[in-house]
Amino acid sequence: MPGLKRKVRHVAQIIDGKQVAAEVKRDVTERVQRLRERGIVPGLALVLVGDDPSSASYVRSKRRLATDLGLNAMVHELPVAIQELDLVQFIGRLNEDDSVDAVLVQLPLPSHLHADRVLAAISPEKDVDGLHPANLGRASQGKPPVWPCTAAGIVRLLDFANVPIAGQTAVVVGRSRLVGWPTAQLLLSRGATVVQCHRQTVNLSSYTRQADVLVVAAGVPHLIGREHVRPATVVIDVGMNRVDGRLLGDVDFEQVAPLVSAITPVPGGVGPMTVAMLVANAVSLCEQRRGKRG
Amino acid sequence: MPGLKRKVRHVAQIIDGKQVAAEVKRDVTERVQRLRERGIVPGLALVLVGDDPSSASYVRSKRRLATDLGLNAMVHELPVAIQELDLVQFIGRLNEDDSVDAVLVQLPLPSHLHADRVLAAISPEKDVDGLHPANLGRASQGKPPVWPCTAAGIVRLLDFANVPIAGQTAVVVGRSRLVGWPTAQLLLSRGATVVQCHRQTVNLSSYTRQADVLVVAAGVPHLIGREHVRPATVVIDVGMNRVDGRLLGDVDFEQVAPLVSAITPVPGGVGPMTVAMLVANAVSLCEQRRGKRG
Repeated sequence: MPGLKRKVRHVAQIIDGKQVAAEVKRDVTERVQRLRERGIVPGLALVLVGDDPSSASYVRSKRRLATDLGLNAMVHELPVAIQELDLVQFIGRLNEDDSVDAVLVQLPLPSHLHADRVLAAISPEKDVDGLHPANLGRASQGKPPVWPCTAAGIVRLLDFANVPIAGQTAVVVGRSRLVGWPTAQLLLSRGATVVQCHRQTVNLSSYTRQADVLVVAAGVPHLIGREHVRPATVVIDVGMNRVDGRLLGDVDFEQVAPLVSAITPVPGGVGPMTVAMLVANAVSLCEQRRGKRG
Repeated sequence: MPGLKRKVRHVAQIIDGKQVAAEVKRDVTERVQRLRERGIVPGLALVLVGDDPSSASYVRSKRRLATDLGLNAMVHELPVAIQELDLVQFIGRLNEDDSVDAVLVQLPLPSHLHADRVLAAISPEKDVDGLHPANLGRASQGKPPVWPCTAAGIVRLLDFANVPIAGQTAVVVGRSRLVGWPTAQLLLSRGATVVQCHRQTVNLSSYTRQADVLVVAAGVPHLIGREHVRPATVVIDVGMNRVDGRLLGDVDFEQVAPLVSAITPVPGGVGPMTVAMLVANAVSLCEQRRGKRG
């Protein structure tokens, strides 16, 4: 029709977390098979304190996937009113139990428990989330026993999508112990120049617009819009915000996707990777502790 | 004279490390005095392995200052061929010695010794350099028992010069365990947006020109020149490079000083701070371990 121009619409690559997670699961299944041939069944202990429904649901999905992939996964449900010393002693028994290769304490803990002290009670060699202070220290040197699950999942997504990291500008928004901080350290260890942004950052878009890789783990729905990106950017959205019954990312996907090189959706991006990497980490700890060969 | 215009030459603030170190020393002297009134003499154990002349000279200057400020500082000279297990056991005895509040193992160690394992043998509560993995982990959370000396010294210089940190852009060049990495973490914990650059960084000046605070700890003489800075930048030069018998910083002072807001000289900037902060850290560990009150 005259007067109507046809626009060639840019289409960003959608990085499919389910597809990459499936790849991780195949890989884990093979490694578990090799361990089983040596008579070893990797053991994952999941510690759930109290009865928060979403924590319980996370723990169930972790156990289900671990079991599906051939691990021996046990959920230990402890009463909400447990004393810290009793919890620490319980973890101590898991540390001593040779059939347990990996220990996860589901966060958040009830407020009377001191998360730092509880996490420090996990043996560093069984610390599947990588949150023991000694493992944080090793992460700061680029060599932890395992990288925290979400950070590991993010980099696996980037590798899958053939996104280069070394020498690139990686901007990480959020510095949580669980996600933002370890992701920054992992990207640094892979050779990126890393910009660590957080809630005190002034003029956020002036940093994010420089990103080759932009990881957003701020926990703020739709924090990142069109003004925060440029065409070369690869966007990894870690946000999982429930708003009015919908699951929203930290990135406004509809605004941002047409403007960038690649992006992860929510749901279906980072989410599926985190549980898969948790099970992969448990198998890695098993291999490390029991030796690659019998 | 006609035709000759008088130029108003910009003069950067020169941040005088000797002056700030003197302030730190006065503060330490008072704190030692308060401890002595309670019958406590802070003990600093300096472990020197082998006979590298510059290591020996550093250790001597640390002991001298600690002694001058009222600490009980002992140098333990161990043979270059010491076995790692013997060194670890030696450190273990210092850990158990109640009169020792702070242990420093002078780096670098002879190549047959594994620095990571040796540093991990120091009790975290006596780790005056902040290099134990658990303390690196705590630093990653912004709350180590003490910040590594040079990082602590840098921030003290910035505070002295009334340079704001929170919400500012801090660019750190170099990511060494001893300096670059902890400085980035300390600036992050003070609320800066931190850009971590290193040898894989491409187009370094594109980052450094954005700095409100630029910390250079790369160990490359005159890495930073006029093209790396802008008028608002405060430059902290950690470089101590011996070239043809001269001590050169990582920053070309003559080029850069006229172009920036403030700068530390080499020598006389960060250098004097490091030893002063070491002694301050030893006193902090003593106060923490023995309690602020008797």
